[in-house]
Amino acid sequence: MTKDQILIYDTTLRDGTQGEQINFSAEEKLRIAQRFDEAHFHYIEGGWPGSNPKDLRFFEMAKDINFKNSRLTAFGSTRKPHIKPSACPNLKALVKAGTPAVAIVGKSWDLHVHEILKIDLKENLQMIGDSIKYLKAMGKEVLFDAEHFFDGYKNNPRYAAKVIKTALTAGADRIVLCDTNGGSMPYEVASVINKISSSIPLNVMGIHAHNDCGLAAANSLAAVQGGVRMVQGTINGYGERCGNADLIVLIGNLQLKMGMHCLPAESIRQLTNLSHYVSDVANIPPINSRPFVGRSAFAHKGGMHVHAVVKNSSAYEHMQPELVGNHRRVLVSDLAGRSNVEYKARELGIDLAKNASLSKKIVHEVKLMEDRGFQFDAADGSLSLLIKKAIGEFIDPFTLECFSVVTSRTENNPCLSQATIKISVDGEEELTAAEGNGPINALDHALRKALTKFYPQIREMHLVDFKVRTLEGSEGTAAGVRVLIDSTDSEEVWSTIGVSENIIEASWQALVDSIEYKLSKDKTRRNSSKKIY
Amino acid sequence: MTKDQILIYDTTLRDGTQGEQINFSAEEKLRIAQRFDEAHFHYIEGGWPGSNPKDLRFFEMAKDINFKNSRLTAFGSTRKPHIKPSACPNLKALVKAGTPAVAIVGKSWDLHVHEILKIDLKENLQMIGDSIKYLKAMGKEVLFDAEHFFDGYKNNPRYAAKVIKTALTAGADRIVLCDTNGGSMPYEVASVINKISSSIPLNVMGIHAHNDCGLAAANSLAAVQGGVRMVQGTINGYGERCGNADLIVLIGNLQLKMGMHCLPAESIRQLTNLSHYVSDVANIPPINSRPFVGRSAFAHKGGMHVHAVVKNSSAYEHMQPELVGNHRRVLVSDLAGRSNVEYKARELGIDLAKNASLSKKIVHEVKLMEDRGFQFDAADGSLSLLIKKAIGEFIDPFTLECFSVVTSRTENNPCLSQATIKISVDGEEELTAAEGNGPINALDHALRKALTKFYPQIREMHLVDFKVRTLEGSEGTAAGVRVLIDSTDSEEVWSTIGVSENIIEASWQALVDSIEYKLSKDKTRRNSSKKIY
Repeated sequence: MTKDQILIYDTTLRDGTQGEQINFSAEEKLRIAQRFDEAHFHYIEGGWPGSNPKDLRFFEMAKDINFKNSRLTAFGSTRKPHIKPSACPNLKALVKAGTPAVAIVGKSWDLHVHEILKIDLKENLQMIGDSIKYLKAMGKEVLFDAEHFFDGYKNNPRYAAKVIKTALTAGADRIVLCDTNGGSMPYEVASVINKISSSIPLNVMGIHAHNDCGLAAANSLAAVQGGVRMVQGTINGYGERCGNADLIVLIGNLQLKMGMHCLPAESIRQLTNLSHYVSDVANIPPINSRPFVGRSAFAHKGGMHVHAVVKNSSAYEHMQPELVGNHRRVLVSDLAGRSNVEYKARELGIDLAKNASLSKKIVHEVKLMEDRGFQFDAADGSLSLLIKKAIGEFIDPFTLECFSVVTSRTENNPCLSQATIKISVDGEEELTAAEGNGPINALDHALRKALTKFYPQIREMHLVDFKVRTLEGSEGTAAGVRVLIDSTDSEEVWSTIGVSENIIEASWQALVDSIEYKLSKDKTRRNSSKKIY
Repeated sequence: MTKDQILIYDTTLRDGTQGEQINFSAEEKLRIAQRFDEAHFHYIEGGWPGSNPKDLRFFEMAKDINFKNSRLTAFGSTRKPHIKPSACPNLKALVKAGTPAVAIVGKSWDLHVHEILKIDLKENLQMIGDSIKYLKAMGKEVLFDAEHFFDGYKNNPRYAAKVIKTALTAGADRIVLCDTNGGSMPYEVASVINKISSSIPLNVMGIHAHNDCGLAAANSLAAVQGGVRMVQGTINGYGERCGNADLIVLIGNLQLKMGMHCLPAESIRQLTNLSHYVSDVANIPPINSRPFVGRSAFAHKGGMHVHAVVKNSSAYEHMQPELVGNHRRVLVSDLAGRSNVEYKARELGIDLAKNASLSKKIVHEVKLMEDRGFQFDAADGSLSLLIKKAIGEFIDPFTLECFSVVTSRTENNPCLSQATIKISVDGEEELTAAEGNGPINALDHALRKALTKFYPQIREMHLVDFKVRTLEGSEGTAAGVRVLIDSTDSEEVWSTIGVSENIIEASWQALVDSIEYKLSKDKTRRNSSKKIY
């Protein structure tokens, strides 16, 4: 390969979770890590096993996963002052995490050594050296994060350089220069890297930038231009304060603009999906104006621009949106979307391209629903159903007659939710009632109870996740809500969606889709004489 | 003045409104322009009088305003091909706008001249020259926007340079280099400016960057380092696609980091207010992670970081938040300890450090609640209440007797939600019922209806956001749920939280906290004889 290879180091699961309102369960972390592996990220920093039980559990579960493309990395800090590495619980937790690589952070700013650790400069160097040697002896690839490197270098260049040399001498495989406070300017980053380049091999160096000045991407790119060969960041730039460098922005610029190589082209085409996936799991609304992958990133509003883009897309677009899996939107008449639907249909073994009018009809329906707040990129189960119904491959398996859900509470008693429901299947009515931990759970129970008589295979499935989001431009509890449900039957996980002003109605839609998706997987339908179970 | 003066050119009211979902009325534009004048912006681009009647009306109304510090600027394009300037309706509209300065955009990329305008390169130069001469003769200060300058220069440097020279020769007062598609890298911007600097006086140059690669700020700063002395941008980076350069980021970096002078220090201290004001008028929720002015920009979550920041704020902050009118926030979460709670209490004017046992008791309660899924870093309103109640500064303002919420639906009718509630205040009972778009909205309405009789100030507040997520290790609709509510009363925004297996119960907790927080702000309590109205 002639192009320079840049290593992608993702820390969404560790530094990303320092962001306000970013919380992932251990199970969510595992699912995200698998997506990163599919995307061919070189390193996935999974968490800090020494800091909390959730991350410990994540690394335990991760031992059963075979990562094909990524090196899972556990994060920690150098040993505590004045103890042996083998006596340091933090380092022991790192080893126990069982990952091929570990990253440890150490101080490179003398101010921190004096004022925060309150130890002398020499002990700090020893902590760094000892910890790295210990982890190398345990057979780990070791990355050393030089915390506050640029601030440290500005204050005491000799000491900051010594910290790095100590780490290299102790056997660190890679050194990561951190702009921890995010306060450095690109010209400062370039200048510091230029200064250290004479004595330190830049190809083992990485950059870890924060976005406090809105310059995390620029600082990372400046470091790469200076010779650094690994970039660290998070998907969507999640992270403490103003966030970390957004890996998607870095990858987009490095690979599509600067002629470097980060990931296979197919992974680049999945960047838009990846961004939306992570924001869905985090339950943080995606930012429309996000570079490369935002919904508005290639949206044209100005009449002059639209006119010109139709003539020549390079007139007002800096690149082809499809390269990152995004698409152009013309805000007056949206032209995009059909390829997504056809792509999805192909996944179901249906070639919609053959039937142009049907394909158009489905796209039209999807567009109408998306205008109302549906979002099918996060609800493949609902989209599959919609396509199958449109081509006549699936017929509604039941009719709702009515339901009612009551939640009540008195002063010192907990809330109680009860649902009654009447459905009919081929003219046969069924009326049931059920309780639940909440109104939607009660409704879910009542619906299953009513349907299991007709479709016993429903017992195989259960709901694994339930998310609610208010829709943009909305007002508090009266807002439009979007409900996403993940269900599983031990064979697969599918996502379904509902949208309404009423959370019960939105949940109902997603519940019904979830059950119908399960039923749609069985070749044996209700009209068939043979019933499964 | 020894520091280099950088001119601030705001185009929120023109290019900003190209952003998806950004719409201002003429009256709103006028109010925003007055805020910009107060902030000492040098230029305010108000709109495109030739393009729409709203902007025409804005400039008419603006004639009655005495701008003290800013030059109001009208935007348009060069004359149409093959007509005289005096016959061009666009230029006439510009003159009629009655502003001291005008900005006109012209093509500097030969591809656009050939393929979009479909004229020859010479006619384009004549359009630029003629239009500028005409506007100068009308007594205007003229800024020339060289559209697509960097793309044009890459494609045909000689022609792009000729465009600028033509504009200068015709009398343009300032030349603005535009990265219209936002696809340029900082090193390209630096290199192009370096190349033209030998033949063009840089001190009359400005930079206008778009954020399609996440580099609008970096490109603008690179241009200033290259010698350019005017930056264009929008507040909050609003604008088409991925937006324009965020003026707040530019001003923050130029003045507080790079030692340039943009605005008086007092204007810098108003940047946080200004950002929130513009996002309020645009009705776009502010982005918490926004550099300098975001709610999370100086928020600390990790216990290690909090511990260090308390010792020395420069440890994890790149600057003092107060310089831009922002403030430090310490997020109370399971990652942090007692210092976070004590810090939060100090914000409320309560010194918990004095009372170690009370402080311990609160921390203990916070930890217990966080084990159950509460997350106080996202709910400072609930945390404030918890502290105030623990020290006896706030007493429950009402007692719930009972409530009941019913949501029902029949086959072809939409969901209907109704709530009944009975509360009592000092022994006086109130029973009410209300409808809503969903069960929580109905409960919210019923609760407010019941309470407004006792606490009329509740009318001042309303809910602005409502978020639900299921909790870790949970199972579908039976999961524990966490509800976060944001409320506002035009003075401030506060967040409250509820956690339960039942979404109605969790929402109830967050609703009650939201109302109690509002009531806790009033010194006049229900037991006082004087009631605020």
